[in-house]
Amino acid sequence: MCPAKVIEGGKRGFVIPIGGAEERVDNPVILKRFVDLCGGNEARIAIIPTASRLEDTGANYVKVFKDLGVGEAYSLEIGERADAQNEANLDALDNATGIFMTGGNQLRLSTILGGTPFAQKIRRLNAGGVHVAGTSAGAAIMPEHMIAGGSSGGLPNEQGVTMAPGLGLINKVILDQHFSQRNRLGRLLSAIAYNPFASAIGICEDTAVFIGPDGLLEVEGSGSVTIVDPTDLHYSSMAEANVGDAVTMLGLKLHMLSAGSTYDLATREAFPPAKD
Amino acid sequence: MCPAKVIEGGKRGFVIPIGGAEERVDNPVILKRFVDLCGGNEARIAIIPTASRLEDTGANYVKVFKDLGVGEAYSLEIGERADAQNEANLDALDNATGIFMTGGNQLRLSTILGGTPFAQKIRRLNAGGVHVAGTSAGAAIMPEHMIAGGSSGGLPNEQGVTMAPGLGLINKVILDQHFSQRNRLGRLLSAIAYNPFASAIGICEDTAVFIGPDGLLEVEGSGSVTIVDPTDLHYSSMAEANVGDAVTMLGLKLHMLSAGSTYDLATREAFPPAKD
Repeated sequence: MCPAKVIEGGKRGFVIPIGGAEERVDNPVILKRFVDLCGGNEARIAIIPTASRLEDTGANYVKVFKDLGVGEAYSLEIGERADAQNEANLDALDNATGIFMTGGNQLRLSTILGGTPFAQKIRRLNAGGVHVAGTSAGAAIMPEHMIAGGSSGGLPNEQGVTMAPGLGLINKVILDQHFSQRNRLGRLLSAIAYNPFASAIGICEDTAVFIGPDGLLEVEGSGSVTIVDPTDLHYSSMAEANVGDAVTMLGLKLHMLSAGSTYDLATREAFPPAKD
Repeated sequence: MCPAKVIEGGKRGFVIPIGGAEERVDNPVILKRFVDLCGGNEARIAIIPTASRLEDTGANYVKVFKDLGVGEAYSLEIGERADAQNEANLDALDNATGIFMTGGNQLRLSTILGGTPFAQKIRRLNAGGVHVAGTSAGAAIMPEHMIAGGSSGGLPNEQGVTMAPGLGLINKVILDQHFSQRNRLGRLLSAIAYNPFASAIGICEDTAVFIGPDGLLEVEGSGSVTIVDPTDLHYSSMAEANVGDAVTMLGLKLHMLSAGSTYDLATREAFPPAKD
């Protein structure tokens, strides 16, 4: 799916993939910035704990957001496809100024939400100005094309990554999370080798990218964001590679970003933090 | 140190860093190609096992090379600095068409050979046409600036790498080995962040780069070679970073090479394998 269209005169909300394990208590800069965007003490955050199999994930985030001073935080317990077709759950989204998707397994998000009115509504609300954040699996699900799984390591491989259709809040982006912690450069490279149309973005834990309505991405948090831009890729052996073969990819661009650095998804330029 | 000058009308020998754990018995393509370069059954290979603390490392490689059909293979047991100043050992190098440095600890190579007539002679012989190969530590020691140690991981860090002067057979190159096996992209990036003057080359196990007298590097072996070219690096936060801080580096080029791919150290262009 692709992002829903912004209504004339309107402004898309931010899309905020987080690399997992974001700080929630001491100096929670990522969640705090998300809450501020959503209205601070007037924010109303709808939490979607669908990725998680733990029963208290939604409730835990309700507490996290309430401790951050939001006006309202509520968890929508979408555990099966019927829940994502239920009118009450759809209506409950209408109230939100921000939507937060928790971690867990991104294939739960895609199998339960994919093709439902609930998924469509998230896209439409985002196009209408509602900010959508997600951590770990909740970040993975955001792009049009999602990394569902893969092997760890630093090298691309013919079977290095499993992809699946995602929620489609952002496109021309391949995302991965827990990036350096789980040594995932190889699966990110595999994904862009499969089809080098997208900017590939690897987000470390306790790190996020805030993607604005203008397509400018800004890094927040304590860690690093690795960006691989295949625009100038002039040779790839992926199509000829057998399982386990070393894969040749020539002409990639690589940027390592930290808090305050920005990257323009439209022009694919990277910029240092603005000077104080 | 810098490479010794080639005498007018002469031709420099190949420099062949190997990423460690090269295949020695079944289909040993790297060692076989080195032996062929050195003259095949007329080759005379001087083995330098200095990096290793194991007593049989030299003898083991003598057997490996003899099994590959070389005319002569002999180990020079340089275990301390006095050995590297000993005339008999210096003379023994004169006979060689190829020199092979084993794995072990590259700091043994640099502390024992550094500044000795033996180190100088290796450079001069290479400038005179003798081929020099080295695996693991024996590869690490080759450049002017050597990676002596560092942490594993995918991200550059202010204390991510320990550098030391190397043997100086090649310059404008930062080398690392056991590259994907030990997850060393971070320390390679740290090294070029310290001073972005060199092409950074990460060599996997059972993989080598054959660097010709023209500065063209060709990949051989079963694995992958990662090249990071900092020519267009337009921003780095390394100088301001504290230990543990995420480091920003914007504008790197990245190439993933496999057997047959080439990279020109002078122009910094990467090329796919030539078509059959």
